[in-house]
Amino acid sequence: MRPKLVLFGDSITEEAFGDGGWGAALAHHFSRTADVVLRGYSGYNTRWALRVVERAMDGVCVEGKSPMAVTVFFGANDASLADRSSGFQHVPLPEYQNNLRAICSFLKHLWPSTVVILITPPPIDEDGRLRYPFGDNPSGLPERTNVSAGAYAKACIAVANESGIPVIDIWSKMQQFPNWEKIFLRDGLHLTAGGNRVLFEEVVERLRNAGLSLETLPADLPLFYDIDPNDPLKSFSN
Amino acid sequence: MRPKLVLFGDSITEEAFGDGGWGAALAHHFSRTADVVLRGYSGYNTRWALRVVERAMDGVCVEGKSPMAVTVFFGANDASLADRSSGFQHVPLPEYQNNLRAICSFLKHLWPSTVVILITPPPIDEDGRLRYPFGDNPSGLPERTNVSAGAYAKACIAVANESGIPVIDIWSKMQQFPNWEKIFLRDGLHLTAGGNRVLFEEVVERLRNAGLSLETLPADLPLFYDIDPNDPLKSFSN
Repeated sequence: MRPKLVLFGDSITEEAFGDGGWGAALAHHFSRTADVVLRGYSGYNTRWALRVVERAMDGVCVEGKSPMAVTVFFGANDASLADRSSGFQHVPLPEYQNNLRAICSFLKHLWPSTVVILITPPPIDEDGRLRYPFGDNPSGLPERTNVSAGAYAKACIAVANESGIPVIDIWSKMQQFPNWEKIFLRDGLHLTAGGNRVLFEEVVERLRNAGLSLETLPADLPLFYDIDPNDPLKSFSN
Repeated sequence: MRPKLVLFGDSITEEAFGDGGWGAALAHHFSRTADVVLRGYSGYNTRWALRVVERAMDGVCVEGKSPMAVTVFFGANDASLADRSSGFQHVPLPEYQNNLRAICSFLKHLWPSTVVILITPPPIDEDGRLRYPFGDNPSGLPERTNVSAGAYAKACIAVANESGIPVIDIWSKMQQFPNWEKIFLRDGLHLTAGGNRVLFEEVVERLRNAGLSLETLPADLPLFYDIDPNDPLKSFSN
């Protein structure tokens, strides 16, 4: 029975199987090794995610089995500014941290052996947000800012560190590259194929650090190049 | 609990989550609706697939639940010519049909309510096979021909028709387009992004014909645009 990697998050997770998406890339990477289970919920913040995490994980695993890992990727919506056009998605920073703690606790209680990986919100390109707003935004002010996203990223890292949970600081990672605003972000918030690639590589690295890689996980059923052309059925005798 | 769509097949299934892949496109299409489970085994013919189908499906579904659908996509390897460089993958036509029947019977016995969809082998571009051979092929003759693939496609359709199983005749479908050899096939056998798109659309149509579509399947948890911005938690009260 293949191990599972569950992706729990907001729209950046929900769209992870679009063209060049980080979820599809993970499923391709682990195509003979693990199942990637998509649990992305567009628009959700941690307040809503905490309400639904139990239902979202229902039936993900056969009784008695735990997923090998779960990514928890929220904060981009929590970090929406309270007094701007997406204010109803805003969650105050202390509550964001408590919600993340509660989500991770829930997962660790449900599946003690599962590797939980936190992912910070991505950086924000405010120019991109103004060019590609959600619905009406006549204010001329972006509903998200990079400073706010950075504060939530730091808060996410703090929760990870206090709990000994691996974390991907995608907010900082992306900003190490010149022109990150345009090469990694499609609309100032969601990822381009390049942005997806960066995230994919970070997830693969964190999984590897936890002992979960193509080298350590068994392939499901005999691989073609291990099958003897002179006696193929030998590989299927068990 | 989300319904599942299982993709069972050879390398064209195993690589279905690569860039532009038909499996990734299905997972994206059903991102809030269904889980797509990858069970692709590169190089396998129906003789080997029949030996492993029980193990391949082990643990796919939680006890008592059936997947909504399974695609069964073999034949490209069976149709390798017996006396050429991939001869050890060849399966004679009558055995191919019997193996397909046995695989479908197994699935229908295991999961009586599941929609099984057969997919014929794709057409073959012999020029492409000579340009991109597997390993050594000094003969100058392609290990697969389009005529042979066509015979296996017709045999697959016959099995589907005798059992009342929906079938995707991707061999014929692709050849309706000019320059199908290059626009749909990467190496004379495996699919380009365009070929993946054709297959994706065919699978979506067959699922729709069986009553399985975004219109009929419930979304998992409240959709963002259904959440009241003035009272978001109302959507999460149950």
